[in-house]
Amino acid sequence: MLPRGRPRALGAAALLLLLLLLGFLLFGGDLGCERREPGGRAGDPGCFPGPLLPRVPPDGRLRRAAALEGDPGAGPGDHNRSDCGPQPPPPPPPKCELLHVAIVCAGHNSSRDVITLVKSMLFYRKNPLHLHLVTDAVARNILETLFHTWMVPAVRVSFYHADELKPQVSWIPNKHYSGLYGLMKLVLPSALPAELARVIVLDTDVTFASDISALWALFAHFSDTQAIGLVENQSDWYLGNLWKNHRPWPALGRGFNTGVILLRLDRLRQAGWEQMWRLTARRELLTLPATSLADQDIFNAVIKEHPGLVRRLPCVWNVQLSDHTLAERCYSEASDLKVIHWNSPKKLRVKNKHVEFFRNFYLTFLGYDGNLLRRELFVCPSQPPPGAEQLQQALAQLDEEDPCFEFRQQQLTVHRVHVTFLPHEPPPPRPHDVTLVAQLSMDRLQMLEALCRHWPGPMSLALYLTDAEAQQFLHFVEASPVLAARQDVAYHVVYREGPLYPVNQLRNVALAQALTPYVFLSDIDFLPAYSLYNYLRASIEQLGLGSQRKAALVVPAFETLRYRFSFPHSKVELLALLDAGALYTFRYHEWPRGHAPTDYARWREAQAPYRVQWAADYEPYVVVPRDCPRYDPRFVGFGWNKVAHIVELDAQEYELLVLPEAFTIHLPHAPSLDISRFRSSPTYRDCLQALKDEFHQDLSRHHGAAALKYLPALQQPQSPARG
Amino acid sequence: MLPRGRPRALGAAALLLLLLLLGFLLFGGDLGCERREPGGRAGDPGCFPGPLLPRVPPDGRLRRAAALEGDPGAGPGDHNRSDCGPQPPPPPPPKCELLHVAIVCAGHNSSRDVITLVKSMLFYRKNPLHLHLVTDAVARNILETLFHTWMVPAVRVSFYHADELKPQVSWIPNKHYSGLYGLMKLVLPSALPAELARVIVLDTDVTFASDISALWALFAHFSDTQAIGLVENQSDWYLGNLWKNHRPWPALGRGFNTGVILLRLDRLRQAGWEQMWRLTARRELLTLPATSLADQDIFNAVIKEHPGLVRRLPCVWNVQLSDHTLAERCYSEASDLKVIHWNSPKKLRVKNKHVEFFRNFYLTFLGYDGNLLRRELFVCPSQPPPGAEQLQQALAQLDEEDPCFEFRQQQLTVHRVHVTFLPHEPPPPRPHDVTLVAQLSMDRLQMLEALCRHWPGPMSLALYLTDAEAQQFLHFVEASPVLAARQDVAYHVVYREGPLYPVNQLRNVALAQALTPYVFLSDIDFLPAYSLYNYLRASIEQLGLGSQRKAALVVPAFETLRYRFSFPHSKVELLALLDAGALYTFRYHEWPRGHAPTDYARWREAQAPYRVQWAADYEPYVVVPRDCPRYDPRFVGFGWNKVAHIVELDAQEYELLVLPEAFTIHLPHAPSLDISRFRSSPTYRDCLQALKDEFHQDLSRHHGAAALKYLPALQQPQSPARG
Repeated sequence: MLPRGRPRALGAAALLLLLLLLGFLLFGGDLGCERREPGGRAGDPGCFPGPLLPRVPPDGRLRRAAALEGDPGAGPGDHNRSDCGPQPPPPPPPKCELLHVAIVCAGHNSSRDVITLVKSMLFYRKNPLHLHLVTDAVARNILETLFHTWMVPAVRVSFYHADELKPQVSWIPNKHYSGLYGLMKLVLPSALPAELARVIVLDTDVTFASDISALWALFAHFSDTQAIGLVENQSDWYLGNLWKNHRPWPALGRGFNTGVILLRLDRLRQAGWEQMWRLTARRELLTLPATSLADQDIFNAVIKEHPGLVRRLPCVWNVQLSDHTLAERCYSEASDLKVIHWNSPKKLRVKNKHVEFFRNFYLTFLGYDGNLLRRELFVCPSQPPPGAEQLQQALAQLDEEDPCFEFRQQQLTVHRVHVTFLPHEPPPPRPHDVTLVAQLSMDRLQMLEALCRHWPGPMSLALYLTDAEAQQFLHFVEASPVLAARQDVAYHVVYREGPLYPVNQLRNVALAQALTPYVFLSDIDFLPAYSLYNYLRASIEQLGLGSQRKAALVVPAFETLRYRFSFPHSKVELLALLDAGALYTFRYHEWPRGHAPTDYARWREAQAPYRVQWAADYEPYVVVPRDCPRYDPRFVGFGWNKVAHIVELDAQEYELLVLPEAFTIHLPHAPSLDISRFRSSPTYRDCLQALKDEFHQDLSRHHGAAALKYLPALQQPQSPARG
Repeated sequence: MLPRGRPRALGAAALLLLLLLLGFLLFGGDLGCERREPGGRAGDPGCFPGPLLPRVPPDGRLRRAAALEGDPGAGPGDHNRSDCGPQPPPPPPPKCELLHVAIVCAGHNSSRDVITLVKSMLFYRKNPLHLHLVTDAVARNILETLFHTWMVPAVRVSFYHADELKPQVSWIPNKHYSGLYGLMKLVLPSALPAELARVIVLDTDVTFASDISALWALFAHFSDTQAIGLVENQSDWYLGNLWKNHRPWPALGRGFNTGVILLRLDRLRQAGWEQMWRLTARRELLTLPATSLADQDIFNAVIKEHPGLVRRLPCVWNVQLSDHTLAERCYSEASDLKVIHWNSPKKLRVKNKHVEFFRNFYLTFLGYDGNLLRRELFVCPSQPPPGAEQLQQALAQLDEEDPCFEFRQQQLTVHRVHVTFLPHEPPPPRPHDVTLVAQLSMDRLQMLEALCRHWPGPMSLALYLTDAEAQQFLHFVEASPVLAARQDVAYHVVYREGPLYPVNQLRNVALAQALTPYVFLSDIDFLPAYSLYNYLRASIEQLGLGSQRKAALVVPAFETLRYRFSFPHSKVELLALLDAGALYTFRYHEWPRGHAPTDYARWREAQAPYRVQWAADYEPYVVVPRDCPRYDPRFVGFGWNKVAHIVELDAQEYELLVLPEAFTIHLPHAPSLDISRFRSSPTYRDCLQALKDEFHQDLSRHHGAAALKYLPALQQPQSPARG
């Protein structure tokens, strides 16, 4: 970089931004003088960012205003009509200035929405960002894990407890419980740090189509007293003539939409905002029964009373899409859109002139590979996210010529994790409850329904998916009555990156999210006996697992080679099928060693749990306390991933107890890509051996001489026929 | 839309564009005065858009210029230094002006590159586009099919035969055959239509990061005599001091890069371009042995001689990425990039400061769902693509409340099709050759290697993938020595859209692309006998299939329920396995009707082909002439898709001849999602029955009373146990 070149170029860049912003303002201001049509928003239950139903009243009730085009006096533009003429361009935000964004979010569905919003914001942003997320416990768990694993440079995230803010707004009668979260935007000036002077507040249902810094730059446009930047409501709601006796809250003309807000927190605090909105709300509530549009009603009522507070923003910064929106007026002449607001309860199914364009735009970010947003910000230096530096160093130390490079790289990969991707009800605390733990990718989705039928208890499943596949998965669950009915199945999406299936990392994610004291560590292509869930809980209690006895309960595994077969309802039926050759013990033909120590002959006759000894290659399906050892994440792809875990259990002196009435049955499927690679590639097998050697070194480090016992097993080359 | 609002808003929009462009020019012009570093480009063999190796000489040979920063006299900016100061902004192109883009493309790999380039261009464009594609036969077949099925509104595509242009440039000695395609950019003024005055010419390895109309607008900046707009080469190649005796072609200073060109075709024609470049090239070739960088050498030599022709463009419109590029100088001060040029032979593996950013940007469009670009252009009215109007009408007539709506919609969906996604060598013409035809999605990729081992002949496979999956598939093939070695397997990507698997549309794509006189209509989870390919060719010849005899040759189908088994090398071995219970006739347990007419008992003993009669539900795997009836595309998802085809063959009086030595074996796999849905959903089964009814109505229309024969079969409800 040439020192002498810099100031000139910087000047040119500054001028460019200045011109850009001048353009936005001229353009937005001009169109902002016209009228728009009703918009609204319904959140998902338990959530949300903007007020809920009925921001758009049901279509049937909607009466179109007679003179949408006329009546210039009705617009909120009146008191700052000057916005409409050419205005001085706001100075661009200083390069690399940290921009602050606040979002209120609660619940599983809105957490997904927030991520799509954030993806669109990150795609276009050129500045470091600080996200201030006001969340309930569910959203916090999801978003904290997500951002921690996402590791996006130059993005800082702070969380604020929505529960603690509830008392400040819960006295306001609301037509919808979730409106409580919408109302929380009112208390941001006191909830956010006192030193924070400016913040952009967003609903979860907006999508960015441009760089957020140009929105931030509009702060410079505020007069000395203006404190709230808003786009006019593109709806007739506040005109109060939608139906007979329609009595909305007071507003300037069409009022403002609070899906996108620029807040001068400092000025609001100084102006006594806390008292101001409460006074207004209390007074209005003397004659109005409740807020209809949550915070938006109150913001509008306050603004009606104190019009000097509001700065009207160009309409392109909050293009409101509803069936009867007049937003088209805002952008139809425009060649550019800045922020799209899906504020109809119909969301993507809304119908308006350009909805196909908008929908495709939204789908772009819904399916966008979030890994691609891990890129460094241009020019702006930033603190790397926690752990990122060590990771970079470890990756840099890898040798690209190492034949096992792919394995090394895959082991180090930090996958983005979206826990409880779909709504989930945690199981009630029960001392002997057990969660089925498994992992899968798209090609095993069809197992889920059968699994739900066989296992009536809680499940924790890790799914290895791309962002686009996660959406397919969502549709799959929604389309299945069996799956949609189950609130006790937690789906955790681990986003794909790299060529090898990170099987043990997936297992660990599912294991970490299990909420019962015990876990059944299964695989997705197994169907447990119908009675297994209840039988395991009873066995755990009887055996005093975890409390009196450090043990792993073995669930004997069988397999069918038939596509369709009649699943045995009892051990007696199972033994009959076994004798008839319709069932086999698991991997009987290919790899009997994996389950031989279970001692199927003894199991046939057993009436009580019996202890078995570890032996090389043993990999039974077991039930253990939730705090059991984790899986070794070094095993990626095919091979040794479960075996190593059982070695670790044995090394930590877990007893292995086979349960006499338990069984689980493997269904046929095509070999996985990883097993195909294992079979066809000698390098793959060599790399697996290298992993095993390293595993044993670590084992020796932790368990000393006791680890010697496992050495022969680890040194024995694995047959390529293994499957 | 308010008539009175329009002129004002239009004015504002125009002003915005004007200001934007002023910004670009100021900024680009300013930075354009500085120096940049070497760049180059290597195409894939058989192709390409820019000159090939060694636009970047191998690193080892590269000697960094001593004084990259100094030496102001060396830059091509000298003769139009005025570019560097503030300039009058070019007027924006009129709203909805048609922009013309020319690209030279040849071969399979470059065709993929062009699609990624086009996706990035369409993502940002706001104008109708006319693409002028100069292609060889391979690229034409691919791109014609792709654009025809893509149906992007406001995109017109014209093709020009590269072969016809070859004689005009083939006299130029070139260091690389593929340079021939690069050289074709020189003859565009005569090759493109005489009435075409302006065109943007692009290499296939550029990615747009902004709206192309702003590039087009730079035409307005040309003086009255300028005819070629170019960005300075960001490399020291033309300084001629990279190594001892380095003798590049003559150029102004660092010369220009021809990855992005604005051509005033009208002025070039008027100025006698045809003669001009030939004279220059002939003269230089008296002392230089050949072009090193194809067209770029000649463009630069002509410009050195006629500096008045060139208009220097801001460097952001061709950011050249190579290991030692000085491009960073161009954009490091910028907050915006316009066009990225992957002009290093290393492509994405190039190393430079911001490569991660650039790579993620490129990957965004590589994996971008092209279906999302089918959106209408804002505001600009355009002729709908061929067929689009009828399609829209048909879709609009569907009833969203119809329980079979999903089926109807899926049947009407036009999928984007990318034929021969990977390099493919057509089979030599042989009168009895036979192509294996099948279709698959990602979950069956692991079948491909085994299939290649079993079938040494040509294959035509349709793959149902998303854009992102297509890239995974590409890596999968590249990583497999077995697959990478096969040039006779044609992979056709059909892009996913909609919830149901369009099985028969996929079969028809694969069938239409088969290039041999005969086809073996198989399914992906079957492995044919090792001898089948040769045996079929011999049988076709012996039986006079197609010429003397209208027949379908039946290949008896078996199945194994084992994950791994020893594939029989002969009919004798097969019969032994059958007797041992290691093999079954196909669907013996679940659905014997599907293959019963094959008469396995007779097949055991048969020494010669024997004729069998059609019966209800018969769905054998058959060999037929390539011009056989297509599959009925109404059958989407699971069920009746093959059965209907066999009915059609029978109705058209194809004999069914079972071959005594032929066999194919089905390998086990998990049930597909579609079959799971079929089993669990009564609606799904009802919809399938509705499709069958409609199929029979059509059958009756075509075959009259003869179709009565099939009525009972069609009315019989299909068992949900079918699989």
